[in-house]
Amino acid sequence: MAEALPEGRVLTAPESMDGYRHDDAEWAPYGQPLAVVRPRSTAEVRTLVRWCLEHRVPLVPRGAGTGLSGGANALDGSVVVSFEAMDRVLEIDAGERLAVVQPGVVNDDLRRACAEHGLWYPPDPASSPWSTIGGNVATNAGGMCCVKYGVTRDYVLGLEVVTGGGEIVRLGRRTAKGVAGYDLCSLLVGSEGTLGVITEVTVRLRARRPAERTVVGHFDSAVAAGEAVAAVAAAGVVPSALELVDRHCLAAVDAWKNMGLSAEADTVLLGRLDTPGAAGDAEAELMVDCFRGAGATWAAVSTDQQEADALFDARRLAYPALERLGPVLTEDVCVPRAKVPEMLARIDRTAAAHDLLIANIAHAGDGNLHPLIITPPGDDAARARAQRAFEAILDDALDLGGTVTGEHGVGLLKRRGMERELGPGVLALHHAVKTALDPHGILNPGKVVGVQGVTAEPVGETIAGPV
Amino acid sequence: MAEALPEGRVLTAPESMDGYRHDDAEWAPYGQPLAVVRPRSTAEVRTLVRWCLEHRVPLVPRGAGTGLSGGANALDGSVVVSFEAMDRVLEIDAGERLAVVQPGVVNDDLRRACAEHGLWYPPDPASSPWSTIGGNVATNAGGMCCVKYGVTRDYVLGLEVVTGGGEIVRLGRRTAKGVAGYDLCSLLVGSEGTLGVITEVTVRLRARRPAERTVVGHFDSAVAAGEAVAAVAAAGVVPSALELVDRHCLAAVDAWKNMGLSAEADTVLLGRLDTPGAAGDAEAELMVDCFRGAGATWAAVSTDQQEADALFDARRLAYPALERLGPVLTEDVCVPRAKVPEMLARIDRTAAAHDLLIANIAHAGDGNLHPLIITPPGDDAARARAQRAFEAILDDALDLGGTVTGEHGVGLLKRRGMERELGPGVLALHHAVKTALDPHGILNPGKVVGVQGVTAEPVGETIAGPV
Repeated sequence: MAEALPEGRVLTAPESMDGYRHDDAEWAPYGQPLAVVRPRSTAEVRTLVRWCLEHRVPLVPRGAGTGLSGGANALDGSVVVSFEAMDRVLEIDAGERLAVVQPGVVNDDLRRACAEHGLWYPPDPASSPWSTIGGNVATNAGGMCCVKYGVTRDYVLGLEVVTGGGEIVRLGRRTAKGVAGYDLCSLLVGSEGTLGVITEVTVRLRARRPAERTVVGHFDSAVAAGEAVAAVAAAGVVPSALELVDRHCLAAVDAWKNMGLSAEADTVLLGRLDTPGAAGDAEAELMVDCFRGAGATWAAVSTDQQEADALFDARRLAYPALERLGPVLTEDVCVPRAKVPEMLARIDRTAAAHDLLIANIAHAGDGNLHPLIITPPGDDAARARAQRAFEAILDDALDLGGTVTGEHGVGLLKRRGMERELGPGVLALHHAVKTALDPHGILNPGKVVGVQGVTAEPVGETIAGPV
Repeated sequence: MAEALPEGRVLTAPESMDGYRHDDAEWAPYGQPLAVVRPRSTAEVRTLVRWCLEHRVPLVPRGAGTGLSGGANALDGSVVVSFEAMDRVLEIDAGERLAVVQPGVVNDDLRRACAEHGLWYPPDPASSPWSTIGGNVATNAGGMCCVKYGVTRDYVLGLEVVTGGGEIVRLGRRTAKGVAGYDLCSLLVGSEGTLGVITEVTVRLRARRPAERTVVGHFDSAVAAGEAVAAVAAAGVVPSALELVDRHCLAAVDAWKNMGLSAEADTVLLGRLDTPGAAGDAEAELMVDCFRGAGATWAAVSTDQQEADALFDARRLAYPALERLGPVLTEDVCVPRAKVPEMLARIDRTAAAHDLLIANIAHAGDGNLHPLIITPPGDDAARARAQRAFEAILDDALDLGGTVTGEHGVGLLKRRGMERELGPGVLALHHAVKTALDPHGILNPGKVVGVQGVTAEPVGETIAGPV
């Protein structure tokens, strides 16, 4: 392989590969790759895929490694492909409102580049300072503004892809509309590198982001905050963000940054609204009314932008703050908005039943909850209980008409949950599509779905499922 | 088959099947079906699919037959499935902003039902008084408000489908977000009945539609109007509609309805803007400036709602008005917005070169043009020239970075154009996916793509391509 590619592309020394072996899903297993390759062009990716085809070696594409499901975790004997050297914004076209980028472009860097043209790339995962567009597309990443503006798939117009057969193809289009053939572009989005290797992305852009108002609510329980979320949805208000941060998160941020948040509320709801003018003012007041109606101990439209920004910063700090307490098993269920309070109540009961600390941050306006199960370092009994709680939370989400993953993807951690959600009929369709587009089973095998009846399956199986 | 289904479901008398043999694509070929079936439940559809599997009989799903590419045209010896008796709105959930409907629900009927709950189902094909949600989903229908609000796929949350293997499955979800597995739901949208039979649709809804302002521009050529469209895009204005109606359409409407439109302008641009408040007023003035800068002979924000509505009515009447002049071969190319004037100029040259009348209506703000090639009834030489012009227009659209079909679908008329657009690598992926999801080739064979190496292929081939 090193002979087929220019010098410097292939890493094989174990110590230089260490940083490429897994993503941020601490609990997902990972293996020892044969090599890490850092291509600089689509042609080099094709060369690599063809080498993998010839030698029947699994190939694991990787963005910045901020994933939370193990989707980018190395398999034993695999080749990990890192797109860090394919990081150029190739084109921004203001008239057509689109940008063309290589997969290694960092999300925030694209947003900044678009802003220079008066344009906005909305999808804003919490990992936006580090995660890449390629990884965002592979996982169909969400974020805070999705509640109004949609997820990554809603912004992907076209893709350049190296197929499982080693061909370079272009899927999708550059025009505003188009129905020539099947929507293979949408199919590739969220397929976690299992159906093709993405080498270029054309994204749709919006006009500059409108100014936002912030509405803050304090509640004496997460369930009460959940009732407010359901009330906002029932009132027909569409916020540009609606985030929930519970007492465990507030306390962890306070312990780290001394912000004094946990003294003021058990749970905080942070709403944003960007409808312009008087209509936006009315929506903000309606949101305050919804908060109060659900029992907020305090609720108001923020008049202090600095204070409002500090609260959103605290929300972003919640995850790293909790990680300081011990290994975090991250959940990502999504339920109908009306079921948010019931789901939060069930998570509380699950925490008690399994004697675990489960913190909650949530894109609450989407019904997308992130229960974070924290166990003391080195406590194997707690880890075992955490895994049972993890599956119990998935079952509760399904029971309430929800999904096991709202935005983090299936990877390894959610494979079993996904199988419960989809059932055998839909799983059979997944296997048929996987086999159709990756007939030799070399593309990230064992992630999302297993590969039936091909040699790659055992490689995937050895690491599948929570350890 | 009649034994397997309740009485009255199966029609076999030729005269009772006549109305089910083709859609509105006058130029696409069609065959003589074996039977027409009007199921009343998903279970009946499954029974039918299983019967077709057992007897290797092709199955052609059909909405209201308003398609313009021949996608619903009967094949010789096929079973046509009409969903006219599965026409119930099953649920409207205001809090979750979604509706669940059977495929035979008429587009405007769903819009009306949603409006009663203060909600809005945006996709608005010109066929909305007749076309059904099932057909809209199968073709990923567009419409006038797509330029701001997106197409049918953007509103499909979930589907119930009978697969090519005769199983009932649910794809997609009811939650705001979800990434559990591949996006097979989006894959089915726009697949024209070739990958599964849709038996239920869950659509996303928006809050009540905002009030719109209308901006009208008169131009002395379609190309000048095209320049205005490109200027609007370059200025960053996002209209809620931007429609172009040329002199041939205006004259045809006048000849039918005596509206006096063609005396005032060669080409009319009709813009709508629904941004509320002062921001919307400013956008409307900016659109007027764009119209004037591109050479409008007259441009203004309409102050007469009745007059504005009459103009949009005229736009809707353009197609039936032209059909009164002779058979219409309907184009549906979509190009980048900046290329609209160049594409319109090329269409003019194509009309002259082939000695044809080509009228233009367009969802111009999307770059989605509908050149309408009209030939005198019974003039076979003109029909032959029209077919050459049809392919020439597709080639020009591709040359300008566009697509052969913006919203009407591939059906039969665009198969050759689609093959030129996609190229062999992407076509191979299409065949792989088709074979994976319809292994026996019974689902609307010969539409969109042929089926490789299975018995249904010759049936498709005998009618494929313009006659």
